Amino acid sequence: MTFFRRNIEEMTAYVPGEQPRPGEKVIKLNTNENPYPPSPAAMKACREFDGEGFRRYPDPLSTRFRQVAGHVLNVPPEWVLPANGSDELLTMICRACLEPGRKAAAPMPTYVLYMTLAKIQDAEFVEIPFDEDYTLPVQALITADAAVTLVASPNSPSGTLAPTAALAELARALAGVLVIDEAYVDFADENALALAREFPNVVILRTLSKSYSLAGLRLGLAVAQPGLLAGLLKVKDSYNVDALACAVGSAALKDQAHLKANVTKVRASREKLSAGLAGLGFRVWPSQSNFLLVRPPRGDAERLYLALKAGGILVRYFKQPRLDDKLRISVGDEDQNAALLRELKANL
Amino acid sequence: MTFFRRNIEEMTAYVPGEQPRPGEKVIKLNTNENPYPPSPAAMKACREFDGEGFRRYPDPLSTRFRQVAGHVLNVPPEWVLPANGSDELLTMICRACLEPGRKAAAPMPTYVLYMTLAKIQDAEFVEIPFDEDYTLPVQALITADAAVTLVASPNSPSGTLAPTAALAELARALAGVLVIDEAYVDFADENALALAREFPNVVILRTLSKSYSLAGLRLGLAVAQPGLLAGLLKVKDSYNVDALACAVGSAALKDQAHLKANVTKVRASREKLSAGLAGLGFRVWPSQSNFLLVRPPRGDAERLYLALKAGGILVRYFKQPRLDDKLRISVGDEDQNAALLRELKANL
Repeated sequence: MTFFRRNIEEMTAYVPGEQPRPGEKVIKLNTNENPYPPSPAAMKACREFDGEGFRRYPDPLSTRFRQVAGHVLNVPPEWVLPANGSDELLTMICRACLEPGRKAAAPMPTYVLYMTLAKIQDAEFVEIPFDEDYTLPVQALITADAAVTLVASPNSPSGTLAPTAALAELARALAGVLVIDEAYVDFADENALALAREFPNVVILRTLSKSYSLAGLRLGLAVAQPGLLAGLLKVKDSYNVDALACAVGSAALKDQAHLKANVTKVRASREKLSAGLAGLGFRVWPSQSNFLLVRPPRGDAERLYLALKAGGILVRYFKQPRLDDKLRISVGDEDQNAALLRELKANL
Repeated sequence: MTFFRRNIEEMTAYVPGEQPRPGEKVIKLNTNENPYPPSPAAMKACREFDGEGFRRYPDPLSTRFRQVAGHVLNVPPEWVLPANGSDELLTMICRACLEPGRKAAAPMPTYVLYMTLAKIQDAEFVEIPFDEDYTLPVQALITADAAVTLVASPNSPSGTLAPTAALAELARALAGVLVIDEAYVDFADENALALAREFPNVVILRTLSKSYSLAGLRLGLAVAQPGLLAGLLKVKDSYNVDALACAVGSAALKDQAHLKANVTKVRASREKLSAGLAGLGFRVWPSQSNFLLVRPPRGDAERLYLALKAGGILVRYFKQPRLDDKLRISVGDEDQNAALLRELKANL
């Protein structure tokens, strides 16, 4: 007997984007972090957090956070399920819904974790290729007829948005669960939250990691009808959201003015960076997120990735078919973006 | 098609111990929280935590915390795997090792989550009954020959410790993984950490929830040889430990003087409370933890649980065979324990 299940033995672990060592001076445009600090109200909640909140177990359902999130998103608090990052929600969905004989499906390329989680459940993962424009392959996803269909919108690494109408068509036709991963949606022109009201099989995922500048806090949330959440609650770790995340996250969500100001800045920088890259001859996919998928004029993405890295700028390079001639670049602040454009121009 | 796997449909969710509403005034002796506040150094790390730590993704392996934990426990940092509470480590072990056809086993009664996690994996869970003295049933556990054998030591709800020699015998005979859940071991006379060095199939679990007064932070750790941890890493959420938990937890671990003073107080109170309860005619199991399993003189545990609750004192009552004539009482501070004894005496 080996210690582990066969599928686990055969797996390799998911490799997160590289992180600079503490103190290392780099411009970090590789993991889609927000260039601006979190809400001052969130920082205040952290500074003032009291020892009693640490000493006791947290509220298993993070009631306070659910109420704030319900208010901000205009859904009943019982439709909100917070977790230790939206990654944990993806884990919960896959644990509850996938096993050998039950399929997952996603349009590809997308967030690699979806496939990893399906493999952990020893479930088949059906890859439906996106076309060059990253149009949502609705019919092929319907035909796949998966127990869990996962669509990131905006998608990573493309930054493209799936139109709500296309997602509605998909939700209507699927018998299984449709996960709409809206990690980046605060940077987009529209979102699909209304589909959670309309369809009992839709679960919308949001995170505070990107638009709220709280990647280090680990806090995400699902919105779905109570029947769907009931199944996810069965596989939830009892105290998955710590008391401090609940307090800091609630303060951050309440500060919608900070969010809006932040998003406005990032969107403006995105358009400017996009134009700058196009001016250098890059193909730039139309982004609704806080990052850009781009193809350098000569397709020599790996060389440019290494040249940028040598110059102290980290961007994301995926050494895999369809992506190995492209780069994914997080939108930084104005100085960072200008430095990136300079360094790219010098290395083209 | 239903949304969920058959075994999930059939499950009921784990119910954590009841939590008073915010502001509600109760003496809370039902979930084994520490009555004393966390280390001032931990609180300082929280107050001084900087926005940059929130903005960025945390270190996926919590390197700093691993180093501190390795130093404190005298094991290589690579042998330490931190997680979002030791509950998450139990989840990771079960996800990596259990599936239909692979069994879990545990001496019963014990922490109910073990069975829940096995059910989520659709694995058989073999219950080996403890005797009245909670002697570790070594031979029966060996015969069960499970892929994952789970032993809480000190055990909950009994508070009793499994001798290291008995655990070594078990580890030596088992081909599968032996989980020694030492959530409460800082309150005990000995621990089994040395077995992680000796046996490649042993994983020791620790938590900062009890002896470090950090239940609200969610931080636990596993100690095992790298071969075993490698399998668990494959099912780990990429960023399972948030940046603040890493900082606060590191500060708490470093403050061993605070831990020792805290543990000394709790152990002294435990002996005093134990004597007080025995004086009222309760049978008290010999506890090596921060709680006591007790049988009231007339076995009317449910009545006493309700009477205490009405009087503003929460203790744990398990309405199940073998436990329904007993109470599990967390050791509080001196005032809380005195109040408990008064209230019990008035209601006997």
